[in-house]
Amino acid sequence: MVLAGCRGAPRDDADPPPRRVTQFSVINALMLGDYDGVFSIGDVLEHGDFGVGTLDHLDGELIVLDGRAYQVNGEGRVLDAGSDRKTPFATVVRFVGDGSLRCPAARSLAELDAFFEQRVPHANSFVAVRVEGRFETLTLRSVARQEPPYRSLSEVAKEQAVWHHEKIAGTLVGIRTPAWAHGLNVTGTHWHFLSNDRRVGGHVLDCRIEQAASTYQVCTDWLVRLDDRPEFDRLDLGRDMRSQVSDVESARGVGE
Amino acid sequence: MVLAGCRGAPRDDADPPPRRVTQFSVINALMLGDYDGVFSIGDVLEHGDFGVGTLDHLDGELIVLDGRAYQVNGEGRVLDAGSDRKTPFATVVRFVGDGSLRCPAARSLAELDAFFEQRVPHANSFVAVRVEGRFETLTLRSVARQEPPYRSLSEVAKEQAVWHHEKIAGTLVGIRTPAWAHGLNVTGTHWHFLSNDRRVGGHVLDCRIEQAASTYQVCTDWLVRLDDRPEFDRLDLGRDMRSQVSDVESARGVGE
Repeated sequence: MVLAGCRGAPRDDADPPPRRVTQFSVINALMLGDYDGVFSIGDVLEHGDFGVGTLDHLDGELIVLDGRAYQVNGEGRVLDAGSDRKTPFATVVRFVGDGSLRCPAARSLAELDAFFEQRVPHANSFVAVRVEGRFETLTLRSVARQEPPYRSLSEVAKEQAVWHHEKIAGTLVGIRTPAWAHGLNVTGTHWHFLSNDRRVGGHVLDCRIEQAASTYQVCTDWLVRLDDRPEFDRLDLGRDMRSQVSDVESARGVGE
Repeated sequence: MVLAGCRGAPRDDADPPPRRVTQFSVINALMLGDYDGVFSIGDVLEHGDFGVGTLDHLDGELIVLDGRAYQVNGEGRVLDAGSDRKTPFATVVRFVGDGSLRCPAARSLAELDAFFEQRVPHANSFVAVRVEGRFETLTLRSVARQEPPYRSLSEVAKEQAVWHHEKIAGTLVGIRTPAWAHGLNVTGTHWHFLSNDRRVGGHVLDCRIEQAASTYQVCTDWLVRLDDRPEFDRLDLGRDMRSQVSDVESARGVGE
């Protein structure tokens, strides 16, 4: 090391390697209703500047973009998520981008997913994908703040708010998780959106691209920060909840 | 930060937080015969001074103790594993110990496991356990170096060498993995042993304790380093191989 003195400095994760994806807690804990935020947004931002998640009490969708954290609350309002706010579940990377691809005019989110799976195979790695462009249509959702005793995410998601937008410009923030990490994160690509004017955002249920470009980053270094409270140890995290996770992440809501 | 200049220094993992457990690759890759070492022992030692694993070509058992890496080869010889050697699978922590317990005179490894599960519950965290003492009996195994095309670990383990020792003093190096991380690491406690005279070691199949003391460390920060070769991406890591892993880790061999 050039700076020998650094070896003695307190270690933190303020400068994680770019091929690292860091997640806070695991998806099955969230599925079981563990919505208490135990990790600060400040801590999350030290681990990455790009990612997705939720807020304390499941208070909406979290979008981390260009080093800032945004909350999309249950009414669809985009707010700054201060570094003192907390989260029960989030996934971030320090986005540098190790490749770029012009996006096809995908007619659905499934088509967009298929495009990236083909062009950025790496089936057993995590991949962060940033898509910037204009969208013909966009279907977003958010969830409303919950109070204990918490219901499961499958129950709460039935009451999600869903919004349809047309002709909107912004960024899709995507984190792709390999299939073998089911139970720990959302397998496939988990997409959130934030508009260029920072007035519209949410968890993406569907989209139709007008014109877009993407950058991506393959992550082979996966850090999982676990909750150290006794409540966490009591959760049955080994249950196979793949179909419930899939329902929660892609369901269009009761009104669809 | 006191030393502002450090923020610009190249980031490495030479000083990982003490509550971090770092694993190189995942157990299902090893089960499927992915024995090519892609991580250097030097890299492993930068992530921890205490742990277990194997060597390139499945060339025996790896024990990391007090910052040194030892290989127990297929004949049971204990050798230094130089930092230029490689490993396909290993798990380490920087051991500081956040608690100590006097061990019971356990009559079996299962009894020892049950003791720690009761006294150090933390069912959803990783736990490193160091047991130092004298053993009435100790059953160890190692595996012989393989050449490609590799057979699965279930096949290779049928040919493992098993040794019985009596009245031996040394250290058990244990890494406990929560049940929900099956497929990724060896669930339950994965124990390796190294004698005080550094002449006997291996993967522990059974033991009977005469007298021992232990220190342990709960890890809530779990780093997984994934192999970035295309071969790794072709492995079907999502298969449920729990029963095969259990057989491989605890089977006493054909001669038992």
